[in-house]
Amino acid sequence: MNHFFKVKSLDQVFELVSEFDPLETETLDLEDTLARVLAQDIRAFEDMPGFRRATMDGYAVAAQSTFGASEATPAWLEVVGTIAMGQIPDMAISTGQAVRIATGGMLPQGADAVVMIEHTEGVDDHSVEIYKSVAPLQHVIEPSEDFAKDEVVLEKGAVLTPQAMGLAAGLGYDSLEVFQVPRVGIISTGDEVIPVTKTPVPGKIRDINSYSLAALIQEAGALVTRYGIVEDDPVALKAVCEKALLETNMVMISGGSSVGTRDFTVEVLSGISKTDILVHGMSVSPGKPTILAKSGKLPVWGLPGQVVSAMVVVKIIVIPFLNRLQGLQAPRSLRRIPARLTRNLASAQGRRDYVRVALEQGEAGLTARPLLGKSGLIRTMVHADGLLEIGEHVEGLEKGRTVDIILI
Amino acid sequence: MNHFFKVKSLDQVFELVSEFDPLETETLDLEDTLARVLAQDIRAFEDMPGFRRATMDGYAVAAQSTFGASEATPAWLEVVGTIAMGQIPDMAISTGQAVRIATGGMLPQGADAVVMIEHTEGVDDHSVEIYKSVAPLQHVIEPSEDFAKDEVVLEKGAVLTPQAMGLAAGLGYDSLEVFQVPRVGIISTGDEVIPVTKTPVPGKIRDINSYSLAALIQEAGALVTRYGIVEDDPVALKAVCEKALLETNMVMISGGSSVGTRDFTVEVLSGISKTDILVHGMSVSPGKPTILAKSGKLPVWGLPGQVVSAMVVVKIIVIPFLNRLQGLQAPRSLRRIPARLTRNLASAQGRRDYVRVALEQGEAGLTARPLLGKSGLIRTMVHADGLLEIGEHVEGLEKGRTVDIILI
Repeated sequence: MNHFFKVKSLDQVFELVSEFDPLETETLDLEDTLARVLAQDIRAFEDMPGFRRATMDGYAVAAQSTFGASEATPAWLEVVGTIAMGQIPDMAISTGQAVRIATGGMLPQGADAVVMIEHTEGVDDHSVEIYKSVAPLQHVIEPSEDFAKDEVVLEKGAVLTPQAMGLAAGLGYDSLEVFQVPRVGIISTGDEVIPVTKTPVPGKIRDINSYSLAALIQEAGALVTRYGIVEDDPVALKAVCEKALLETNMVMISGGSSVGTRDFTVEVLSGISKTDILVHGMSVSPGKPTILAKSGKLPVWGLPGQVVSAMVVVKIIVIPFLNRLQGLQAPRSLRRIPARLTRNLASAQGRRDYVRVALEQGEAGLTARPLLGKSGLIRTMVHADGLLEIGEHVEGLEKGRTVDIILI
Repeated sequence: MNHFFKVKSLDQVFELVSEFDPLETETLDLEDTLARVLAQDIRAFEDMPGFRRATMDGYAVAAQSTFGASEATPAWLEVVGTIAMGQIPDMAISTGQAVRIATGGMLPQGADAVVMIEHTEGVDDHSVEIYKSVAPLQHVIEPSEDFAKDEVVLEKGAVLTPQAMGLAAGLGYDSLEVFQVPRVGIISTGDEVIPVTKTPVPGKIRDINSYSLAALIQEAGALVTRYGIVEDDPVALKAVCEKALLETNMVMISGGSSVGTRDFTVEVLSGISKTDILVHGMSVSPGKPTILAKSGKLPVWGLPGQVVSAMVVVKIIVIPFLNRLQGLQAPRSLRRIPARLTRNLASAQGRRDYVRVALEQGEAGLTARPLLGKSGLIRTMVHADGLLEIGEHVEGLEKGRTVDIILI
């Protein structure tokens, strides 16, 4: 076997993202776009909200009518009407006058502020006392204050959050062009892997990875096709890979990527037409034996067989490539939170380490307790809240130091 | 109109969660359970991994055979065979012997540690030099080290994360009992609200809330039924409410809950049979005019009409009630991250405030910049990364102080 190692640093692996292209686009009803990625700019067709609008229940006034008003010396204003919600006012007001208005209502000509109802007392149907002055534009939104006509409000490549969808609705979009959802094929390999429904004899292990890796991919907004468990047979693995490459946009093979007994994922991939091995080994722990190939236009991953290692690699490395297929402008950034380390940690130079940690709220703030269980133990993954990243040029970290934890 | 205000603090509102019950349960294939809530305990039927397992590629040995081994004085061991992955070893080893083994392989009788392949050099087919000693149990997992037989591993009420699903797979569960997914009805009210496809004349506003609130509910793992826009007509609103109460597990009415012009959501709800108003007004900003009713067994919400206020109320208050219907043991906790405040903030005592902030990575760590735009501006929500909570007993916060930000 020819083990020509294409070992790369994590940064070198990330640079390979540009080898792959975003998927095609499609047009969807706005209500179906949650978590999808915009394939068009969203711009304001008109000013928003488009009119001078009240942000409080109360009285629309010319602000100067209230100057000097207080509990002791209230201003007395003439009430000349009520503005119904959603109506264009048919009156104008002048100094000394007021109009009843509700939140969201349109201010009449001559009004430039709203006095909150809490700071008023109606004297009779035609007059009101004002107990607090308002400044011009207080409790109002100006016509183009939210967005001005033609402004690009969200750019192609942005994720459609609930806020972004509300924004698109407010601007009049009832459908949007978005990138298609990638489909990811998952193949488990290894003679030791058995279906979940079987009881393992010693030496065998249930097919955990098909479930946990599939769920990570679903969480990241993609669809999963499962190709089951393939025994350590190069012919069978090649056939399943080729099928998956025809049916999906990315393939993940879990198991069989270490330079150990019966390692042949690289050989199998090398034997598939138009397939180049881009990465064979990364200076990352866990995740050292990871393989990345480009088959036609598609990324194919060989992942470590150990579940915790495989999950870390998917989270840290595979999902940024998935984000590329999804059309994201930049990979979804990992959320980080500062915490104090509870013990010293050693680390090898020249290798990026990811250590699982449990976050605990202590008296002096958040602490990160490294879970140093072996990576074959899924217990550590279930109890882990985050990952501590230790850079290539760091020899170790001292107890008590504040570190950034990647939330998982 | 009878405005008998049932104003409550946020903590008093949260106590009302116990008025509502989790939904019925259903049994699903494991692969379909992502983000669902367990309605059963998951326990280990057997020890895991169930056998002494290698966590590295290399040689299985009796650790004592390697004691004192170094680059300068390697230990020489006899290689008595190879353990294929997934096989029960048919040999036993004694001191001075070694067996080739791959990660995940089962150690043979007599072996209690694994020497990494990097620390060895094969001399010929039947002998190997060991350059580094190993301690007993080094690079192995013990049979019950991950989980012991009968141990409860995940409790009813836990969320099925990718890790939890992997765990369930490893323990032999191919289906799980989970709580059903709640269906939430969303009704927009207000004469000023028009469909997204229409161009607003002054005084009108497009129906943003149906989209942004629906998306928040979907993000929280529930299904949405939209009941469109209902004009300010009590008869029509009552009819739509009653229909939604028959078809869904929770109803949200957006708009019409302020004590302003044409406010009648409370009157409409009071007129529906078996319906009690539990909350009418909260000492929370934004969100003061929020209504909570119990109709039969279902929660019904009246939300502020302003989109930013409505979204904050859904995020902070409505979703914990949704989590109750979903069967969560405790409401999904909001993730908080410490950051330094960029300016002084005032706050009213006796009221809990939520201020939208933008998080920015500065030289001295993360800072939180309050977005003090008016709550009618959705611009502030799109640019906000989190919410700063200011408690009832706090008068204000000083610039430079470290505060906890709720990530949104």
